[in-house]
Amino acid sequence: MLAIVYLNGAYKNKNEATISVSDRGFLFGDSVYDSTAVIDGKLIDFDKHFNNISHAMEELHYVKKIKKEEFIEFHRQLIKKNKIVNGLVYCQVSRGTQEFRDFNFTKADGATVFAFGYEQTKSDQKEIADGIKICIKDDLRWKMTSLKTNQLLYQTLARSESATMGYDDAWMIDEQGCITEGTSSNAWIIIKNTLITRDASGSIYNGSTKQNIEKIAVNLGLKVESRPFTLDEIFQCDEAFSTSIKHLLTPVISFNGVDVKNGRPGKITSKLREEYKNYLVKYKSDR
Amino acid sequence: MLAIVYLNGAYKNKNEATISVSDRGFLFGDSVYDSTAVIDGKLIDFDKHFNNISHAMEELHYVKKIKKEEFIEFHRQLIKKNKIVNGLVYCQVSRGTQEFRDFNFTKADGATVFAFGYEQTKSDQKEIADGIKICIKDDLRWKMTSLKTNQLLYQTLARSESATMGYDDAWMIDEQGCITEGTSSNAWIIIKNTLITRDASGSIYNGSTKQNIEKIAVNLGLKVESRPFTLDEIFQCDEAFSTSIKHLLTPVISFNGVDVKNGRPGKITSKLREEYKNYLVKYKSDR
Repeated sequence: MLAIVYLNGAYKNKNEATISVSDRGFLFGDSVYDSTAVIDGKLIDFDKHFNNISHAMEELHYVKKIKKEEFIEFHRQLIKKNKIVNGLVYCQVSRGTQEFRDFNFTKADGATVFAFGYEQTKSDQKEIADGIKICIKDDLRWKMTSLKTNQLLYQTLARSESATMGYDDAWMIDEQGCITEGTSSNAWIIIKNTLITRDASGSIYNGSTKQNIEKIAVNLGLKVESRPFTLDEIFQCDEAFSTSIKHLLTPVISFNGVDVKNGRPGKITSKLREEYKNYLVKYKSDR
Repeated sequence: MLAIVYLNGAYKNKNEATISVSDRGFLFGDSVYDSTAVIDGKLIDFDKHFNNISHAMEELHYVKKIKKEEFIEFHRQLIKKNKIVNGLVYCQVSRGTQEFRDFNFTKADGATVFAFGYEQTKSDQKEIADGIKICIKDDLRWKMTSLKTNQLLYQTLARSESATMGYDDAWMIDEQGCITEGTSSNAWIIIKNTLITRDASGSIYNGSTKQNIEKIAVNLGLKVESRPFTLDEIFQCDEAFSTSIKHLLTPVISFNGVDVKNGRPGKITSKLREEYKNYLVKYKSDR
């Protein structure tokens, strides 16, 4: 979290930015978020992120609507005030405060809008270059996972337990034995020049990086299969990687301590990473 | 939420009580809560509630421990400062703040402790006397529901949709077609002098009111079956009710618009309510 944050119309030092104890985000986990990548100081895919957060607010019956111009303005200001070069802007909107702690939110009419900037660190870059070690955990999250809400406790448990055991992240597995996604990333495997990633039809978040990589892969002449894949398949794959706004495309080098092939980032994965960087540089002039 | 609240060691006016935007309770839904009933100004079953919240903190690997004496002191002070007669004290503990927004919480070492008082209203009392109308919703919550965490977004959705459709609350149903619990209460039906309520073995919260009612029912010579019950059974039951700290024991008079028997609070339900009130008056001298 960089020094200057945005909160309900004002720019504040992060140490002075506070919300009411009555905020439904705090009392009920009733908030949604999205992050937008920043490359060379420019916002990437801004429209997609604005649409994602607006869609989540609508699905969850938030009465408050947020104007796109207002949204883009504080994203730009956060880049400027924090001098972000490569990183992201994170934005979270809660249903706001209500006089009583009431499960029924039909009388809530406000929203808390909070955003902060993040600059990519050297350790992020090292992780992307070296690849990460994944462990597998049961997916115990709520079932409306196609919306990015701040009910992230299970993801934090899975990530923290991974770290304690010497892994970098966890991929989660559903009751049918198929991978859903990473704790804050989409999950991919490659078998014989075919990329396999779960279809974003309700059970996972349709990340913008995921969508972009699908396009780039097809342009490179690779096949993309959008379908659930199993634990057996990940132990037999040729390459694997995860995608997210924060780390873009990160090679995966092992699952539960078992190396993927020779335990180094795969060739197709590296090619995709490179192409994706070019794509972003070309695309960034957007905003 | 009554006027004076407790926050991290201090008593404040609720309008001046704020938490950092970095609080993991706000960013990740990473907090736990519990409520303790107050009858005639006395705390009921305080030890159980303290144990519940401590157990949840332990299960979720909170490093911070909270001393019982400290806990009971701010509960008592909130009763005194807000002159609570019959109501409850709500307490929420989050994992506290962390410099970065990091899914990995292993570097978090703090906690945010927040509590407020609530005085029972006339509308609460009317609800208890008249009975409530229930609708049935799928249970889409995360799977660690035996812990009372503030990831309550699904419960608020179910409750708010119920209200919009003219119901008072929703009971949730699992993939096996069995009732789990209400959005903030335990669920009970009565068939031929037998009380049926789900066993609290991991899939639901083992409420203290639930435990007390089980004891009282047995003392009255009633049979209690602790097992999951189905949708079919609720449409064939003789009586139904829900239990919670806030409303204690509330008769249920209909499911999805279909009356339970004659659509009035049942006889055994009313007897249990009366006995429970006597039990609480006897028990309240505890604290």
